[in-house]
Amino acid sequence: MIRTRAPVPFTAAADAIVAAGRWLDRRGWAPGGGGNYSHRLDDGTLAITASGTHKGRIEAADVMRITPDGTPLDPARPSDETLLHCQIYRLFPQANAVLHSHGTASLILARARPEALAIRLAGWELLKAFPGITTHDTAVALPVVDNDQDMVRLSARIEPQLLAQPAPPAYVIRDHGVYGWGRSMDEAARVVETVEYLLGLELGLIQLGANR
Amino acid sequence: MIRTRAPVPFTAAADAIVAAGRWLDRRGWAPGGGGNYSHRLDDGTLAITASGTHKGRIEAADVMRITPDGTPLDPARPSDETLLHCQIYRLFPQANAVLHSHGTASLILARARPEALAIRLAGWELLKAFPGITTHDTAVALPVVDNDQDMVRLSARIEPQLLAQPAPPAYVIRDHGVYGWGRSMDEAARVVETVEYLLGLELGLIQLGANR
Amino acid sequence: MIRTRAPVPFTAAADAIVAAGRWLDRRGWAPGGGGNYSHRLDDGTLAITASGTHKGRIEAADVMRITPDGTPLDPARPSDETLLHCQIYRLFPQANAVLHSHGTASLILARARPEALAIRLAGWELLKAFPGITTHDTAVALPVVDNDQDMVRLSARIEPQLLAQPAPPAYVIRDHGVYGWGRSMDEAARVVETVEYLLGLELGLIQLGANR
Amino acid sequence: MIRTRAPVPFTAAADAIVAAGRWLDRRGWAPGGGGNYSHRLDDGTLAITASGTHKGRIEAADVMRITPDGTPLDPARPSDETLLHCQIYRLFPQANAVLHSHGTASLILARARPEALAIRLAGWELLKAFPGITTHDTAVALPVVDNDQDMVRLSARIEPQLLAQPAPPAYVIRDHGVYGWGRSMDEAARVVETVEYLLGLELGLIQLGANR
Repeated sequence: MIRTRAPVPFTAAADAIVAAGRWLDRRGWAPGGGGNYSHRLDDGTLAITASGTHKGRIEAADVMRITPDGTPLDPARPSDETLLHCQIYRLFPQANAVLHSHGTASLILARARPEALAIRLAGWELLKAFPGITTHDTAVALPVVDNDQDMVRLSARIEPQLLAQPAPPAYVIRDHGVYGWGRSMDEAARVVETVEYLLGLELGLIQLGANR
Repeated sequence: MIRTRAPVPFTAAADAIVAAGRWLDRRGWAPGGGGNYSHRLDDGTLAITASGTHKGRIEAADVMRITPDGTPLDPARPSDETLLHCQIYRLFPQANAVLHSHGTASLILARARPEALAIRLAGWELLKAFPGITTHDTAVALPVVDNDQDMVRLSARIEPQLLAQPAPPAYVIRDHGVYGWGRSMDEAARVVETVEYLLGLELGLIQLGANR
Repeated sequence: MIRTRAPVPFTAAADAIVAAGRWLDRRGWAPGGGGNYSHRLDDGTLAITASGTHKGRIEAADVMRITPDGTPLDPARPSDETLLHCQIYRLFPQANAVLHSHGTASLILARARPEALAIRLAGWELLKAFPGITTHDTAVALPVVDNDQDMVRLSARIEPQLLAQPAPPAYVIRDHGVYGWGRSMDEAARVVETVEYLLGLELGLIQLGANR
Repeated sequence: MIRTRAPVPFTAAADAIVAAGRWLDRRGWAPGGGGNYSHRLDDGTLAITASGTHKGRIEAADVMRITPDGTPLDPARPSDETLLHCQIYRLFPQANAVLHSHGTASLILARARPEALAIRLAGWELLKAFPGITTHDTAVALPVVDNDQDMVRLSARIEPQLLAQPAPPAYVIRDHGVYGWGRSMDEAARVVETVEYLLGLELGLIQLGANR
């Protein structure tokens, strides 16, 4: 993981992406090849996982370079969801890394509430893991957007919620997974881990009938 | 894991089978010695796990050679379920690797629905991990067949569902486990991991009363 | 793990016990120092874990020698539950290794059914992991005995169920854990893993309301 | 882990804290940077994790020295919850190590019972993992205190329950996590692991409707 809070050279980004993929796979959050990861580079371009490799088994050679609008700069084909990464870097200039995880709680919760536009997380100490939050005594609305294979349409649909104030630290694509970002790969990993953890708590409470 | 999409020499197959066994064991999908794994060889024969070894502790010496119809070519006794592997290679010429996992979700789901002939998986992004599927907006019927110690009878019972179009990527033996396959060991692993993951989601939804 | 089906020298037994402890700890079945493990030695005595060490962190020096009736042959204090190990070796001459695990399913199930004298496991393919079982189409009654700090009383209470025919492969102490054994450490591990796995399936079915 | 039951030099304490952090992270009990760990030093001061580092990735350089009342002796900023550690060392002279974990069961249970001042653990064999308990036939009341960002207020609120006799081995901060301690880092780890394990059992029973 990279603790630095700045764009980095390609080799450092590729190493951070590989490390993140292995970590997500160990947690069970990168099943079946799902997930894609990226990092902002110090020359203004982006590093992103190529399409199709199992994310627990990626190597630096599976990471490629793209322009900020998603045009490949290397021969490989970038992830199908490249546009969602580009959107996050465009809307959040301080974001330097993006992770997309596939934990189960977000999928179960979002399908169990087919009409929900957000999942509310409130009162948990670990909300402080999200940038800018300094107390448990608050609430975060995690946007939920319906899945779509058309990335132009999907990114347009989520954009208003990303522009809302306060900006969310992450969002959920229904039936699909979680997108989180941070000033460093370390922070992106912290955000994604916290989202998966807090959604697991919410799911546990619903299973007890103790939450609605 | 082997990414190549072709039959391989015996040593490569044995290595891939050992790696798959350790990976399945780490995920908890090879309990108590359960499971058996195979790979198509470049001389037209098959490599398969011998009977009785714990699959998390297999070594290359626990892998043996059989003919396409299951006759041992080495002194050891092949897995009791050898015929099911042979059937998959016979019906699916593009299949080069077969994995049989023992995750819990498939067992709980299939016993909870004793009359079901299939488990329907619909709308999940990760369906795209199955070969030939390019959108979440689809459904896959995973065949479910009752268990049997008679492999001739069991393979005959599942065969019609394997011949259905579109062909399923995997199937469930009730009270027993999952069979999945792929053009490479890597793809077989991806299929099995995806089936276990998606069945876990379905189980989670049923636990919430959000699915039927 | 040791595959041999015979009593072994002390150093081999100690190595097998250490390996078993690390494996059980990785699975979450040796929490808080719980659990104790033993092996029959080739001189007619027994090797057993000393009292008090966390089982995920034991080393060969934490294994000691006792007589078949539990008298220490080394300065350390053997496990509080030594008598239960001695009983198994006395009643089952073919048993060469005993493991005591602390998975959660057995504890939840046995407390949820405070009157049950056994947990019935039926129809699962993995029953074949128990010695002597060759078909899923059978049932195993896993004895359940109430916990007791008095090992003479506890061993006397379970003895009739251990002498029943067919002999059980393992038993459950209510609010405490599972005892399993085998002709080798490998087989004992297989039995314990299978018990924890099958009880997890039963628990999953009860959570769905699909079992009683 | 350190088995010694005494204050230790700084380097040994830092090593024990790093090992504990990696262990807690592997168990999923240190998500999103949550958690903080400390050890009593042989010069009368304390070693504690600095604020802000992910606990699964801490190194010895992320551990710092403070006075017994929490004043930093190194340039870094100690954990926000330093005062809770200082309180434990002040009230329990025999405590030499403190761990703060973030398992899910304590959070789900404590939020599901918003009025509860304690969680009662009774009849489990593993209660014997808590110092001073020699039988399963007993009960331990684990104090539960509401979360607060003001550590003076939070420590004052929990203090009466820490002074109760018999003294609890650990306590729960609602919506936050578990604090446990011991004469050594090894014992603190054993206490925390046992609390997370037993709360998981209680949660499992409530999910079955078998506990109230």
